[in-house]
Amino acid sequence: MAKTIVTAALTGVLATRKQSEYIPYTAQEIAEDGKRAVDAGASILHIHARNDDGSPAYDIESYRKIDEAVKSLCGDVIINYSTGAIGIDRETRIHHCDALKPDMAALNMGSMNYAIYSPKHKKFYHDHVFENPFKDIGFFMERMKASGTRPEMECFDVGHINNVKPMLDLGLIEAPLQFSFIMGVLGGIPATTENLVHQSHQVPQGSHWQVIGIGRKQWRMIGAAISLGGNIRVGLEDNLYMPDGSIAKGNGACVEAGVNLVHLMGGQVASIAEAREILQIPVKQTA
Amino acid sequence: MAKTIVTAALTGVLATRKQSEYIPYTAQEIAEDGKRAVDAGASILHIHARNDDGSPAYDIESYRKIDEAVKSLCGDVIINYSTGAIGIDRETRIHHCDALKPDMAALNMGSMNYAIYSPKHKKFYHDHVFENPFKDIGFFMERMKASGTRPEMECFDVGHINNVKPMLDLGLIEAPLQFSFIMGVLGGIPATTENLVHQSHQVPQGSHWQVIGIGRKQWRMIGAAISLGGNIRVGLEDNLYMPDGSIAKGNGACVEAGVNLVHLMGGQVASIAEAREILQIPVKQTA
Amino acid sequence: MAKTIVTAALTGVLATRKQSEYIPYTAQEIAEDGKRAVDAGASILHIHARNDDGSPAYDIESYRKIDEAVKSLCGDVIINYSTGAIGIDRETRIHHCDALKPDMAALNMGSMNYAIYSPKHKKFYHDHVFENPFKDIGFFMERMKASGTRPEMECFDVGHINNVKPMLDLGLIEAPLQFSFIMGVLGGIPATTENLVHQSHQVPQGSHWQVIGIGRKQWRMIGAAISLGGNIRVGLEDNLYMPDGSIAKGNGACVEAGVNLVHLMGGQVASIAEAREILQIPVKQTA
Amino acid sequence: MAKTIVTAALTGVLATRKQSEYIPYTAQEIAEDGKRAVDAGASILHIHARNDDGSPAYDIESYRKIDEAVKSLCGDVIINYSTGAIGIDRETRIHHCDALKPDMAALNMGSMNYAIYSPKHKKFYHDHVFENPFKDIGFFMERMKASGTRPEMECFDVGHINNVKPMLDLGLIEAPLQFSFIMGVLGGIPATTENLVHQSHQVPQGSHWQVIGIGRKQWRMIGAAISLGGNIRVGLEDNLYMPDGSIAKGNGACVEAGVNLVHLMGGQVASIAEAREILQIPVKQTA
Repeated sequence: MAKTIVTAALTGVLATRKQSEYIPYTAQEIAEDGKRAVDAGASILHIHARNDDGSPAYDIESYRKIDEAVKSLCGDVIINYSTGAIGIDRETRIHHCDALKPDMAALNMGSMNYAIYSPKHKKFYHDHVFENPFKDIGFFMERMKASGTRPEMECFDVGHINNVKPMLDLGLIEAPLQFSFIMGVLGGIPATTENLVHQSHQVPQGSHWQVIGIGRKQWRMIGAAISLGGNIRVGLEDNLYMPDGSIAKGNGACVEAGVNLVHLMGGQVASIAEAREILQIPVKQTA
Repeated sequence: MAKTIVTAALTGVLATRKQSEYIPYTAQEIAEDGKRAVDAGASILHIHARNDDGSPAYDIESYRKIDEAVKSLCGDVIINYSTGAIGIDRETRIHHCDALKPDMAALNMGSMNYAIYSPKHKKFYHDHVFENPFKDIGFFMERMKASGTRPEMECFDVGHINNVKPMLDLGLIEAPLQFSFIMGVLGGIPATTENLVHQSHQVPQGSHWQVIGIGRKQWRMIGAAISLGGNIRVGLEDNLYMPDGSIAKGNGACVEAGVNLVHLMGGQVASIAEAREILQIPVKQTA
Repeated sequence: MAKTIVTAALTGVLATRKQSEYIPYTAQEIAEDGKRAVDAGASILHIHARNDDGSPAYDIESYRKIDEAVKSLCGDVIINYSTGAIGIDRETRIHHCDALKPDMAALNMGSMNYAIYSPKHKKFYHDHVFENPFKDIGFFMERMKASGTRPEMECFDVGHINNVKPMLDLGLIEAPLQFSFIMGVLGGIPATTENLVHQSHQVPQGSHWQVIGIGRKQWRMIGAAISLGGNIRVGLEDNLYMPDGSIAKGNGACVEAGVNLVHLMGGQVASIAEAREILQIPVKQTA
Repeated sequence: MAKTIVTAALTGVLATRKQSEYIPYTAQEIAEDGKRAVDAGASILHIHARNDDGSPAYDIESYRKIDEAVKSLCGDVIINYSTGAIGIDRETRIHHCDALKPDMAALNMGSMNYAIYSPKHKKFYHDHVFENPFKDIGFFMERMKASGTRPEMECFDVGHINNVKPMLDLGLIEAPLQFSFIMGVLGGIPATTENLVHQSHQVPQGSHWQVIGIGRKQWRMIGAAISLGGNIRVGLEDNLYMPDGSIAKGNGACVEAGVNLVHLMGGQVASIAEAREILQIPVKQTA
């Protein structure tokens, strides 16, 4: 059984301190909570930038501050930046990758409804079309190729995985391929073990994949992913709560729970160096 | 093994007589080719309207002419109108259902990339985001409910099937539910037997479903659907070619091949009356 | 998510104290280790009888001593006796159930090779045909029906699950049905998440099921089962080791690890009373 | 889509002329009906020997007569002899392969209940344990290796496929591997498309497989297999009836129906030469 790679999604941009006081906002907070995640076993940090009031930031300087703080505190951890946003032009979504050349960046692989429905209040709270046509997918792939950034291909349904095929044919991306299966967003594939098994069968042989479970089914999906030999993502971006329903007191606590799950299922967690070797992402030499 | 219900998708709007001289355009042509389909074993006709030059028509009068001609020639066949179109406002996509109260109409259950890629020419020929947010899904459901029209829920991926759940919770749709699994469009779920089995496991118990295979894998998907006890759709909208690769000389020929497949796998085809009973769609009494 | 029912398989008959000093042999040892399992969260105890030297015992008196000791120490815990044995006549395999009328007893649902192969030594250590023809399955079902004992149907492959169908047709068994999927025995279905998902799809609707993982993949299979909403079995009969590879210091430790897994995946463990209600096995009134 | 290889199972030993007058018994009858099968598109003939009264024959001479007659009438067709029998010693089950060195021979890969149950009469008509322990599997593999005969590994359940692994480890068999999934025997895996998809996922990459559907679900399973890119087996051994329920008037008619199915699903049937190339079974040079 290969070692499990643990990603911590530290902050996201949707939830705020009104929902959890533990969400890091500033570069320093992100780096410090990232450090706790790394100490607990994370080898990849997935990061969105925020302004000091918690609102989303897309400027290069915000990311540069994070980059410096994280590299200062978290050693060789694999850095993975967000590029996803609704209503933001694609240049702004990628320019920090050009500038900072992170190890990895998220890349959305298809379009879908992205919605939240409350059965209790019988209404939709969000009802967006999340648009990621092929011309945008290709745009992001080209830019990531130029900056030596590995795309973390985010797939919300079966078709999204298949969308890699024309990109491979066009030479816009090459093996090793790395997929994330996001499960549990209304509009995309539901969070069930059956669906996770099915997704894991769709990727080209030799690809890496992790599960990203949204909301309270996250922990169950993580257990399913470990049993399948996949990698896992935890952290406050995806779920503010611990398995027992209590508020997660920071990303360190989330990673600790994920690592415990790996151990209780008889597995082992990859160190940063092991994760870099498995994923073939060597440390970048800076001049 | 339940009897198989065969739908003929007579014309669509994408392919033209440049690609196949057998595509019916006018109301009279549609009704006559529909008659051949019915004689060969179809019990449902899925119909788009066209202008006399083959371009898509959305006006009520075009549909009314088709309605009269089909009812005149094809007896009690179940009539199923299109409501799908890219770049047409939703009022125009539904007004013919208000006016003509068909037995059934197609209803797209989610958003996705809708693309065509040519490996030979290394380019995309289409690259659209097919937008069907929940507010539109709800809009069409309400209007179909008002006209006593059964939604044929078109699902291009796993999440699209799940999208029915909030609609059920809101009372916008009720059992019996009827799903179509469209397979093989780039952006949606690929046309494989594994994927069809998976889709068939996603529907609420007691639901009806059919497969719609796009392009040359259509016949293989139809065979898979029959083996699973599902219903099938054939016709020039989905595939201009016979199983042996020759041009299909009309919808009658397509239905005949589909019916032969059902028979060769030990099954039987439902008559119009049997299809109406299975699907619980009685003949509408006109004043 | 329904509560998870945890069974502890306390002792089995294959492993001995040469392999683990923690295996209970005598009635008193079994009851005391059962108590630790119950305290840790088990609501069902699966028990084989042993002689004081650890060899398998099939006589009623051995089981009677266990019955008294367990009932004395473990309250209303659900008692599940073994009936499986190679080379023992079927009367001897069931007579303790006639006499003691346990809540539940294991019942093997099919035949298979039952083997152990060592890749290291390039040889088979066991190579038996485990024979359970339908006439024996029916024999055990009739006797369990007479003693008011719920069959725990042990299935080592897909066909074994299907074998319940003629038995249902003959009235030899009735709902609620309870299945165990044993995974990882050479000759039967391998221990993979894909296989567990597949097995879980085979049971008649409304059935209960648990996973029994043999050997070092046990913990991974337990995680997969929890993610699917199934029940789990732990204990020294199935696996002498903890998830980290260290020797398990008794059944209490095994149950504790299983319960932790349930909790870390966001679930809850059923109490004895809850397990009896879920499975519809009321406490038997003794005169 | 690779070409489909069609095997005709000409006669078996269970059914007799009381059930169908078209079953060939003698060497000459077998060769003549084999010729009709080949002319209709079969490239492999699976053959059991019979005495002139239709009872099973196991002697070398009976097989030698068949061998000569078939080679005389059916050109380079791939010859596949049975080795399966209940209650016959294993030497007798293999000696014709030693003597005649056929291209291929069937080899049972596991043990199971082999039963027939009549819901109508509420009774079992057969209830055998079909015993194939590993020592027998190894015995047959060694002998087939010595005679240059490709094992057609017959698998009645998931575990049977996995049983090839220790044999590979022991060097008793080598790639290319060839599996048959027998579906629909009570005791083994039921004949469903879900089960066939699952079986097809279990074989080592690069393996060949065909479906063998027993009884009236045969034609449905054949359609499912074609959709999955697998090979198919038809013929009077497996099913005496055509898809429409009428009696099959010989193996030629069975093959013709199978070939029609392949064609109607858009596929093509391999010639004998193509089948030999795909399976890597060259024509044996006789001195």
